[in-house]
Amino acid sequence: MPKPVCVVVGVGPGNGAAFARKFHQEGYQVALLARRDTYLIKLQAELADAKSYICDVTQPDQIIGTVGRIQRDMGAVKTLIYNAGSGHSCTIESLDIQDYETDWKINARGCALFCQLVAADMVKQQSGNIIVIGATASLRGGANFVSFASAKAAQRSLTQSVARYLWPKGIHVAYIIIGGPIGKGQTLGGASGRDQKAFLNAEDIADSAYFLTTQDHSAWTFELDLRPSIEKW
Amino acid sequence: MPKPVCVVVGVGPGNGAAFARKFHQEGYQVALLARRDTYLIKLQAELADAKSYICDVTQPDQIIGTVGRIQRDMGAVKTLIYNAGSGHSCTIESLDIQDYETDWKINARGCALFCQLVAADMVKQQSGNIIVIGATASLRGGANFVSFASAKAAQRSLTQSVARYLWPKGIHVAYIIIGGPIGKGQTLGGASGRDQKAFLNAEDIADSAYFLTTQDHSAWTFELDLRPSIEKW
Amino acid sequence: MPKPVCVVVGVGPGNGAAFARKFHQEGYQVALLARRDTYLIKLQAELADAKSYICDVTQPDQIIGTVGRIQRDMGAVKTLIYNAGSGHSCTIESLDIQDYETDWKINARGCALFCQLVAADMVKQQSGNIIVIGATASLRGGANFVSFASAKAAQRSLTQSVARYLWPKGIHVAYIIIGGPIGKGQTLGGASGRDQKAFLNAEDIADSAYFLTTQDHSAWTFELDLRPSIEKW
Amino acid sequence: MPKPVCVVVGVGPGNGAAFARKFHQEGYQVALLARRDTYLIKLQAELADAKSYICDVTQPDQIIGTVGRIQRDMGAVKTLIYNAGSGHSCTIESLDIQDYETDWKINARGCALFCQLVAADMVKQQSGNIIVIGATASLRGGANFVSFASAKAAQRSLTQSVARYLWPKGIHVAYIIIGGPIGKGQTLGGASGRDQKAFLNAEDIADSAYFLTTQDHSAWTFELDLRPSIEKW
Repeated sequence: MPKPVCVVVGVGPGNGAAFARKFHQEGYQVALLARRDTYLIKLQAELADAKSYICDVTQPDQIIGTVGRIQRDMGAVKTLIYNAGSGHSCTIESLDIQDYETDWKINARGCALFCQLVAADMVKQQSGNIIVIGATASLRGGANFVSFASAKAAQRSLTQSVARYLWPKGIHVAYIIIGGPIGKGQTLGGASGRDQKAFLNAEDIADSAYFLTTQDHSAWTFELDLRPSIEKW
Repeated sequence: MPKPVCVVVGVGPGNGAAFARKFHQEGYQVALLARRDTYLIKLQAELADAKSYICDVTQPDQIIGTVGRIQRDMGAVKTLIYNAGSGHSCTIESLDIQDYETDWKINARGCALFCQLVAADMVKQQSGNIIVIGATASLRGGANFVSFASAKAAQRSLTQSVARYLWPKGIHVAYIIIGGPIGKGQTLGGASGRDQKAFLNAEDIADSAYFLTTQDHSAWTFELDLRPSIEKW
Repeated sequence: MPKPVCVVVGVGPGNGAAFARKFHQEGYQVALLARRDTYLIKLQAELADAKSYICDVTQPDQIIGTVGRIQRDMGAVKTLIYNAGSGHSCTIESLDIQDYETDWKINARGCALFCQLVAADMVKQQSGNIIVIGATASLRGGANFVSFASAKAAQRSLTQSVARYLWPKGIHVAYIIIGGPIGKGQTLGGASGRDQKAFLNAEDIADSAYFLTTQDHSAWTFELDLRPSIEKW
Repeated sequence: MPKPVCVVVGVGPGNGAAFARKFHQEGYQVALLARRDTYLIKLQAELADAKSYICDVTQPDQIIGTVGRIQRDMGAVKTLIYNAGSGHSCTIESLDIQDYETDWKINARGCALFCQLVAADMVKQQSGNIIVIGATASLRGGANFVSFASAKAAQRSLTQSVARYLWPKGIHVAYIIIGGPIGKGQTLGGASGRDQKAFLNAEDIADSAYFLTTQDHSAWTFELDLRPSIEKW
């Protein structure tokens, strides 16, 4: 039997790599997506069966093309991790309307298109997982995060709509709210013990994401918050 | 002393007209904005001093041009009512990604740009009002509203960020959550008494919007929900 | 025609007095309730037609007796303002379980009983208003407010349930979220201009509470937040 | 090394038994608490090392006594599962104020007292887990759940305050929102396949509760919702 396919959108040395390693370790064949291939090549070499794809999620054509290529190369997608997400920090006064658009394209429109494209196969198979990586900013529009927060709020709402539509069809859609800065993980170290406690380890985020994909359909989670024990919230 | 200026973005025979009439009646000079001038001409004739402007809020250039023209024609804006808002009803399966973009441009990007443009004068004068007309969908992503809900969530988050930045500068920013269908108002009638109770009257929405602009800065409201007494929520 | 009756539960020189003065000024006959009569006597002398009642809201028997007396003295209640509310500031470690109970009795149980008792007449008349004065703590359980926040959360949920039941019967139930410290009002003054801006004026809170009672049933508000323009939130 | 101690408050044949079995299976010594011993005796016989305690959580003295006995019998508590929770279904009109009090005592006051009592040892050891079993009603006051919803809202707020205080001290406090009816589990069967899908299996709830206790402190979850894939929400 072929290995199940996991697509990780937004792969860098932090979160994205941790998702890829975790799902690889759990028996998945992993598709690694990023805008540039610098890191992809390195990670692909580390993970047997993994394939890497250059994809700028602000470009619908690239998304459509990439998903098609993954399906041809690896087969139907079993699990999608949408980890692409960036955001400009600015106020309404300093906001550049182009940045506002880019943040929305990365966090919301790209996510919508990926969900739509992978859902078709999942609906046929009445199973699959879509995990979207969000942030506390999705719940609160701070004065200095007018662009990032609005994009994340759009993404969270989108993921809710997708969940409400796909859950009854057997597809588990969930939103993870990251509530703090992500550290470099155990692999780097170097930071003092005290500072370390203020960061989320990417490996620990990946563990919770993977856990969601193992939940039985009788008790699925839509939203999960993750933050360091010493974080103020 | 010249009359204060109220800009109503999104003027049709429902909500938009009611806002225009209410602020006119309270002593404002009103700028009426819509994508087409069919209704604008009629309403302008009814309201002395009112001026109408054709403006497609999906076009940043038109927004920038229109705000500039209003400022030259009427002076600095005292109150902005952002009432433009539409949304496609669809699921993630039936979603057209172009519609998703249009809904976001109308509800979120256009709103951001209007806020930014009128805020400059308001900050100088340390006063002003920005009222954004939202919807329950801003709080909940329903399966059949993947496009509208996501756009409204982006809008609500945006308005929060704008409020947190502008309130301390003396500008009252608020978000009104419309929680039901809007009726044709007392002026049309015709519907049976029972049906009428299921609709919000545009005049009543306008009363609450106007009230917000009269609150003292010691006790400002950010969010106000409005729904008919018999609505399920 | 007799004046409509407004019952203000929890009358002291701040909020409570402001509600009483505002509804008196708007043509109501006001019932003033507090645990001790020190301040009641003074305020009753100021407001023609007002009557004062000593009522400890932690005692169900006193609540039942007081509402009965008001109905005999003044007639059916048109508007109830539930302003009783106190809260101990403590952590789970320092919490005294007796205080936890008292806070719940004042904020939640007393409120439930008042709502139940005045609703009977309101349902018959298919009209009336119930305004409950809440706090930001109803939305967030802070580490140092384990008792106050839990009591306020119980109160907010209660008020929602009451609203969902009574709105369709013609009774407007609303919850006001006070998001900051309440000042002594314009009558005292003395504080520096800068400090004053950090406080809500009780008079301004009363204006918003009164406005809610004037909304048409086509567009009722359930929840309204009030905070000073310079408050962080 | 002695086994870690897990206290399950509110043990019946559904949820409570599933928590007890799961933590037993994962190497815990389990304390089983319920108001009556009928079921406790049966379950205790099934789980080696388990001990059962009769405890009415509406009685603070019984709670204090029971926690003291558990600590003497089994040692410091490593994990507390607060599963006691019942609620009367009624409107503000039909509400019996005694039931309102009982629901609050079971869901909120009892929970506060248990948290306070087990936290002392946990703080010393800078580790431990407190999992409170909540419900969707904690987020929404429905017309017909005035008593249950208010009690659950009080409980959720309480758990938040406890989490914000204890997380930085190394104790993981979390709230699980059960969003549907709980079935009898795979062990009973009998119901048709279709009906089964509408119920949460208690075993699956227990799996998620246990998972929370395994999260690394770098990425803890406070709130987790659980509902069947076909549930409307």
